[in-house]
Formats: sequence, structure tokens, C-alpha cells
Amino acid sequence: MEAYFDNSATTRVMDEVAEMMVKVMREDYGNPSARHRKGVDAEHYIKEARAQIAHTLRVQEKEIIFTSGGTESNNLALIGAAAANCRAGKHIISTRIEHASVYQPLAWLEGQGFSVTYLSVDKDGHVSLKELAEAIRPDTILVSVMYVNNEIGAVQPIEAISQVIRGKTPSALFHVDAIQAYGKYEIRPKKQGIDLLSVSGHKFHGPKGVGFLFVREGVKIKPILYGGGQQKDMRSGTENVPGIAGIGIAAKEIYQHFSENLSHILELKDYLTERLMELDGVVLNSKKGQESAPQIVSASFQGVRSEVLLHALEDKGIYISSGSACSSNHPAISGTLKAIGVKPELLDSTLRFSFGIWNTKEEIDYAAETLKELLPVLRRYRRG
Amino acid sequence: MEAYFDNSATTRVMDEVAEMMVKVMREDYGNPSARHRKGVDAEHYIKEARAQIAHTLRVQEKEIIFTSGGTESNNLALIGAAAANCRAGKHIISTRIEHASVYQPLAWLEGQGFSVTYLSVDKDGHVSLKELAEAIRPDTILVSVMYVNNEIGAVQPIEAISQVIRGKTPSALFHVDAIQAYGKYEIRPKKQGIDLLSVSGHKFHGPKGVGFLFVREGVKIKPILYGGGQQKDMRSGTENVPGIAGIGIAAKEIYQHFSENLSHILELKDYLTERLMELDGVVLNSKKGQESAPQIVSASFQGVRSEVLLHALEDKGIYISSGSACSSNHPAISGTLKAIGVKPELLDSTLRFSFGIWNTKEEIDYAAETLKELLPVLRRYRRG
Repeated sequence: MEAYFDNSATTRVMDEVAEMMVKVMREDYGNPSARHRKGVDAEHYIKEARAQIAHTLRVQEKEIIFTSGGTESNNLALIGAAAANCRAGKHIISTRIEHASVYQPLAWLEGQGFSVTYLSVDKDGHVSLKELAEAIRPDTILVSVMYVNNEIGAVQPIEAISQVIRGKTPSALFHVDAIQAYGKYEIRPKKQGIDLLSVSGHKFHGPKGVGFLFVREGVKIKPILYGGGQQKDMRSGTENVPGIAGIGIAAKEIYQHFSENLSHILELKDYLTERLMELDGVVLNSKKGQESAPQIVSASFQGVRSEVLLHALEDKGIYISSGSACSSNHPAISGTLKAIGVKPELLDSTLRFSFGIWNTKEEIDYAAETLKELLPVLRRYRRG
Repeated sequence: MEAYFDNSATTRVMDEVAEMMVKVMREDYGNPSARHRKGVDAEHYIKEARAQIAHTLRVQEKEIIFTSGGTESNNLALIGAAAANCRAGKHIISTRIEHASVYQPLAWLEGQGFSVTYLSVDKDGHVSLKELAEAIRPDTILVSVMYVNNEIGAVQPIEAISQVIRGKTPSALFHVDAIQAYGKYEIRPKKQGIDLLSVSGHKFHGPKGVGFLFVREGVKIKPILYGGGQQKDMRSGTENVPGIAGIGIAAKEIYQHFSENLSHILELKDYLTERLMELDGVVLNSKKGQESAPQIVSASFQGVRSEVLLHALEDKGIYISSGSACSSNHPAISGTLKAIGVKPELLDSTLRFSFGIWNTKEEIDYAAETLKELLPVLRRYRRG
């Protein structure tokens, strides 16, 4: 049996997505900038995808900029907003549990003369609205908070955060990294007061190499790539038409079946949580049910190194992640787990299970049974 | 009949490329950063593509950085090199006929305190080595020259340019935008003295949304996207594995059949040139045979607006470009045509025909016959 529980790292594309991409690559391969029919046909796919995505967020089509993925979306949002608004101030607020594609651009901006305040989080991974309010200064131009944390699934109170920002400063922009949230939450940027929202295609059964940034009408950001002036000068470069058509389909599909997908994934989460609780020496870092993201279960396994457990599970066809795959190029103890106060001896014993729409309860049973067999063996081995 | 002669704007992907991408998206969809087998399998595709591409250039695998396309490759090369070397100087040299994805990043760098000298070109579109030598200053850190011009197919003497640079300053970097050259020339960065080389997948029957930058070992550039540290920190973001696998296949295929492809395209070029010369009032801007790029024929049609001719040809299933599609978001008279001294009355009467490996002589006959019929009608219409 095979059980892929690493969907927060990446997902398998939907068949409809792959089929659409092949059609575009083989038949409608024109350059959207070309003035002839093949260009117009290609442009049509982009318009369609933009409409599909805008509909899922209830925003305008012109507020969607396609990028090469979540990392570019976050870089464009942060560096683009900082560059466009630096005359109003050079102070930015973020949190201690952001993804590298947020905290690394912020570190770069610090090198460029910006100052960044990183909010702490409580044991559940939530920022304090009070701490946020206190951090806002007259020169604060941007607040960046992730919607769903990629390691423990903590969900931030986005609308409340926005209200705090608006209450203290009408001009600061609010950026939300929604890379782990899109497809799992009904996101309403207008209602929630979000100015900039980053999304990546391959986290919700869309293609790799494509993502988008929602930029609220009237919000000024500068581009980070310069060239032919595509996408109203905000993102130069021949559009990745097959990828864009693919992410459009994936967005439409995931939200068309939103309730079923959500209850299915929540059921899996509750079931895995339950089965993990039956095992000895397991500490949950994610919350139960809807108190944290539906697709993520983070658990620490006392007395076992996560790397060892990961490979033991892999041998049984079970694929999970130790920490966040996206930052595993720099293997290091997770900042998020430390930030929520996970005991030092458990930091290196933590795994993340993350679900996609095709996972099943049978797979969870298989994983639970496998863990039940493996854990005592691995613990004995370690003590030995 | 349909005749797609806009291959310098973009190409149809090879079937092998589409098939490979579907396989990766459906079966080997892991995140290359994941520590389990699915991650390792995904990483394998990247290694394979890197090896395939490195082989075509006779460079090392580690010298290839994958990007989201030509625009990002050029931005990374120019902004990355400027940022990494600004302590040595802030002077850059380029030409007046570069693509927007070169001259726009350069314009941005000028706004950041760099100064740029733009070399003029002669009537054939070639830079003068003497002018280059005179332009080099002690604070010159970077020279950027395109290999093949996208509008008229002018080919720069890359190796000679490199020798001039080396003769005057050992430390300045030499960047070559090879987006229209890769697949049509046997490029040897080591031998030709190239430090940085930009390539885009969709110009040679590979996928859109993926490209690469060759960075010679020892050359220092800074990244322009920050995040998870993928590709040795040089290009963060989950790798577009299907796209990367696709560009690898396309690179391998295009160079495996290099001689056949080249002679086929050259034959098409010579044949179209010949057929165009049979028509009245046609002025060639590209050179014959190997004196300019094999895939590009630029011609001005006296007394006809290019936009009108483009759409008249489109109605007959013939797809060509007026100027360069990549910059057609900003319709304007081409800088390249002006730079080579095309007569003012012909600037707006110019079309670019560009070939891919699947074009045929029959298509050219069809285009020539169609032009023969259309031109007198359109000219009469204009005079009327």
C-alpha cells in the first residue's frame, strides 16, 4: 500500500489539469503577446484562468497577477510593496513563524534599510492582537502574516488582524501568505481586509511553476522582474499559458467541491489524530478539528528521531515530512516548533502529515498500524 | 493550409516534452526538497535535465540554474551580477538592440545608481569592437550583448567581444542573452568566454514557464528571489519539476538532431528569402544564409502597414509577427529597426517570419503565393 501524506509539500495534479496543459502545449501554443489569432487564443486561456481564480476569492479579474509560484508571489508582495511605499516609511511587521519565502525577502529588505518587527506566537501558534497593535508605528508600511502555518497548521485571525491594522494606521498594507490556506478556506480578501494574497498552484493539485498574487485595486507595488511589460507591467515574461490554464482549472475544481473536500479532509485529520492518540509517547502540535488547518497534523514521537522514522515509514510506502519540505534544503530545527514552545527533546522528533483530496481512511489505518509496529522497535534501537 | 511562422515568439512543444511533463505531474509529483523517495525521484529529473543541458553547452551541471523563463534569466544575470559586484564599480555596457528583458532591468539598475553605455550597431545590426573597447572603463563590471537579435536575426561576434573585454579588463563579467540562439548555434561558453548565458525553454519546442541561466563556476551573482534556498540558494522556490524535465528533453532533442534541424531551417530561410525577392517592393532586413540567424527573416513591405498585412495573412492561416511579439504589449516602433537604419517609411511595414523545426517548403510556397495576391490589393486599398 502507498500513502502519500506530504500534500503540504506538494500534490499530484488533477487529471483535468494535466489534460488542459497538454492541450495548450500541443494545440494552443501561441504567445499571448502575439497579435494574431494564436496569440488571442492563448490570451483567452489566461483570461479564463484569471476569471476562475477571481471568482474563488470574489475579487476582480484585474486584481490577479500570475507568477512562477508561491515564492515569487511572496517576494513580489513584500519587495514590491516595500519598494513602492518606502517614502511613507520603512517599518514592516511580520511573525516568527513565517515560511522562508517570507522571512528571507524580509531579511533582504532589512539589509536595504528596512526594519522588521517579528511578532511572537503563543503555544497554539497564534499572534497576539495586542502585541500587533503595540508594534504598529507611524512608519509601518506593511504587515505580513501567514494564513495557515505550513508546519503545524495554526490559523491566524486574519480579519481581526486586519481590523487592528486599520484601527491604528489606514495606510499600511496587509499581506497574507495563503499558500497553505487556498483551497482549504473560503478566502474573501475584501471582507477580510487583505491587500495582497499569495497562492501557489502545486499545493492544491494544480501545476508546479505557477502561482498568483492578488493585489487589491488601488494598492501600489513595484514589479521585481522587468521586461516586455506583460500583465500590465507587473510581471514581465511570456506567460506560462499551460501552467496558468492549469492553475485556473485546479482553482475552479477545488472550490466547486469545497464542502465535500473540506469535510473529507477534516474527517481524515480527526481520524489520524485519534489513531495517533492511541499510541504511546505521541504529542500533538496541531490542534484538533477546525481549531487548526484541516490538512495538517503535526505530531512529535518521543524517543525517535524524525529522520529515522521518516525513512522507516518511507520503506513501507508512507510519505510524510519532517518539518517543512520547503525549507529542508537547510536542515535545521524548525523555528515554528520552537516558537510554540515544543519541548527541546521533541523538536527533532516531529513529523508532519498533510492531506490531499485523494487520501483515504484506509491509508490512515495503514499508517497507524505501521507506526504501532515501528515505534517500539525504533525506540528500542535508539536506547540500545 | 496553416503556416505558423512565429517561432521566435514561441513554439509548439515536442510531443516527447508534453509526455514527459504529464508523467512527472501524474506519477513523479514529489517535492524535490522532500527527504523521502518521492522527493528523491523528483530531484532525479532535475539532475537529469541539468546534465542534458550542460552537455549541450559542454559546461558543468552545477553551472546551470533553472528559472521561470528567459525574462527571469536575464533579470537574474543582470541584477544579480550588478548586486554582487557593485563594490568593484557601477558601469555596465550593453547595446541599443537588446530585448526588453535586458534593457528594462538595465533601466532599473540605472535608477539604482548604475550607469549604462549602450553601444550602437551598424546597418547589419552588429556592434563595433572598437566602440566596445573604447566604452570599457576601470569601473566596468558587466557587459551584456545578445547572441541573436530577436527582430532581424543579427548575430554578434560573441567570442571576439569576449576577447576585447578580457583584453581591457580581466574582471568584468560577460552576459549573453542567448534566448534566440540556443538550439540554432553550438554555443560553447568556455571557449567563447561567456560568464552568464540566458536561455528560455519555449523558444526551442520546450515548455513555457521555464528557462535557465548558465553561471560560469567562480562567477558571483546574487539571487533575486529569496526563500527556501533551492538550487544552492540561487533560485528559491519549489522547482518546476515537470517544466525542468521538459526543457531537458527539448534541449537534448534539439541538439541531438542539430545538423539536420539547422540545414532544414537554413533551407527554409533561403527559400523564403528567394520567394520574397520575387515580389515587388520588398526590402530584406535580415541577411541571407548564415550571415544572420537561420530561423529569422525580417522583411519590409513598401506601402503596406504591417498590422494590416499581419491580419490579412492571419485570415489565410499564416501566422507571423510585426516586430517582436515579446514587446508587443507596448506597441511601438522597433528600436532595432531604427538602430540599423531602416527607412522611416518602412519601419511600420515590417514583418518577421521565424521558423521552427516543423515548418515546410510547402508552407513557404503558400505564404509566398498569398503575399503575391494580397500585396497589390492592400497597396491599392491604402492608396484609395
